[in-house]
Amino acid sequence: MGFMQQLRQRWTDADTLVCVGLDPEPAKFPAHLQGDPDAVFAFCRAIVDATADLACAFKPQIAHFAALGAEDALQRLIAHIHDAHPGVPVILDAKRGDIGSTAGHYAREAFDRYGADAVTVNPYMGRDSAEPFLARADRGVVVLCRTSNPGAGELQDLEVDGIPLYQQVAARVATQWNANGNCLLVVGATWPRQLAEVRAIVGDMPFLVPGVGAQGGDAADVVRHAATADGTGLLVSSSRAILYASQGEDFAEAARAAATGLRDLINRHRPR
Amino acid sequence: MGFMQQLRQRWTDADTLVCVGLDPEPAKFPAHLQGDPDAVFAFCRAIVDATADLACAFKPQIAHFAALGAEDALQRLIAHIHDAHPGVPVILDAKRGDIGSTAGHYAREAFDRYGADAVTVNPYMGRDSAEPFLARADRGVVVLCRTSNPGAGELQDLEVDGIPLYQQVAARVATQWNANGNCLLVVGATWPRQLAEVRAIVGDMPFLVPGVGAQGGDAADVVRHAATADGTGLLVSSSRAILYASQGEDFAEAARAAATGLRDLINRHRPR
Repeated sequence: MGFMQQLRQRWTDADTLVCVGLDPEPAKFPAHLQGDPDAVFAFCRAIVDATADLACAFKPQIAHFAALGAEDALQRLIAHIHDAHPGVPVILDAKRGDIGSTAGHYAREAFDRYGADAVTVNPYMGRDSAEPFLARADRGVVVLCRTSNPGAGELQDLEVDGIPLYQQVAARVATQWNANGNCLLVVGATWPRQLAEVRAIVGDMPFLVPGVGAQGGDAADVVRHAATADGTGLLVSSSRAILYASQGEDFAEAARAAATGLRDLINRHRPR
Repeated sequence: MGFMQQLRQRWTDADTLVCVGLDPEPAKFPAHLQGDPDAVFAFCRAIVDATADLACAFKPQIAHFAALGAEDALQRLIAHIHDAHPGVPVILDAKRGDIGSTAGHYAREAFDRYGADAVTVNPYMGRDSAEPFLARADRGVVVLCRTSNPGAGELQDLEVDGIPLYQQVAARVATQWNANGNCLLVVGATWPRQLAEVRAIVGDMPFLVPGVGAQGGDAADVVRHAATADGTGLLVSSSRAILYASQGEDFAEAARAAATGLRDLINRHRPR
């Protein structure tokens, strides 16, 4: 089953739009994991096992592993998700982008080495730079559109023929990049108006929506502005607010409570 | 000594504008290295040692290592360059870009884990996403401007108030991102007109210029259109044409000959 089909199945079966972001920061791990040489894997696995039934996807952020030299932990973590929680897809958040021959190596890194079901990519270099990802029809390609950071607008809001660049990107992805039907867009929860504008451009294309929680985005607003008519179309991603809900021994239970709260908040606002 | 000072020193001392790209592809390694479990490191080290006196910088491309799970080889390779060839800076070609908190992890990956002297970054998310790189005043930040791939223009040529996006990026980097004087731009050798246009916007800011050789860019054209008045300002990067000049046992000698040819071609066209 391809990524897109798996995602739609998961939305239905698990009745959740929550994407749990896996951004390990050892300094924030509970005391009993400090000093454990395999703490990154142990922490993330505990979070995964505590939240899997609440998640429509997991999203490990690769820089958090790479800065620690923890590629092996990332590889085992993705394998663990696939083994222990079949049906929950994994989006590798890597924001890759390079000329085609090099992009092929990045695609192999994400899809073959790590076994990710989808990957985030940066559109600045153009469609040919994303082609090795797009060509993998069974995998998802999540293209940056309007990102959640405060300075997102510096380039993304520049107007081309009266239309901001992020909308130009959305339209191009929908009409020119999506021949295999495997594209999604990143639109930040911090920009509700832009969420609605992009939704109007791209129909039912799924959005990966970071920025709720620590970054200040409002999950209810996201659903109101960007859910599709059937009440799906969204992966509302939360990382820090779930992972570090408690820094004590109860971190996994606290993560579960935070993910449950987010799922329920979102579900209350979904059209049914 | 910071990256920018080291680069200028190197241009003068070694009289070369050639940047040797390190893009290992084991299928193209000579037969005697096939089967060597440490072939990636052995191949790249041989190239480095054969070309260091001809290079103003080395540029390992991280996807080529990551797709193979060869992070350890990349780490040892950069350490080897610093140990054996002091004065030759290392640019990690990673094209990173993410929200600030995550970009901090990418900066630690590039500068602390790998010890790179500079890194390539993608501007799409805006200046705040590059801040953790820009803040490292002793390291170089090489921002994508007009990339070498055939489809570069899809977004980069979109006109904002009559000025194409890549020129908007160039102007912003020069006036707003470069407070620490540690910015460079990527402009592809495949676009001579655009090289000249960007040069006119950013003064003496150095350009990393990929795309000569396998991608079809002309090194003499690059120098004519984009060298600074003192005959520097360029890192003309070549990877495949040097690395795989021969796929036989003489690969290192052939790489040296190719790098020598490129250096001499460039030097014949430099203003002196």
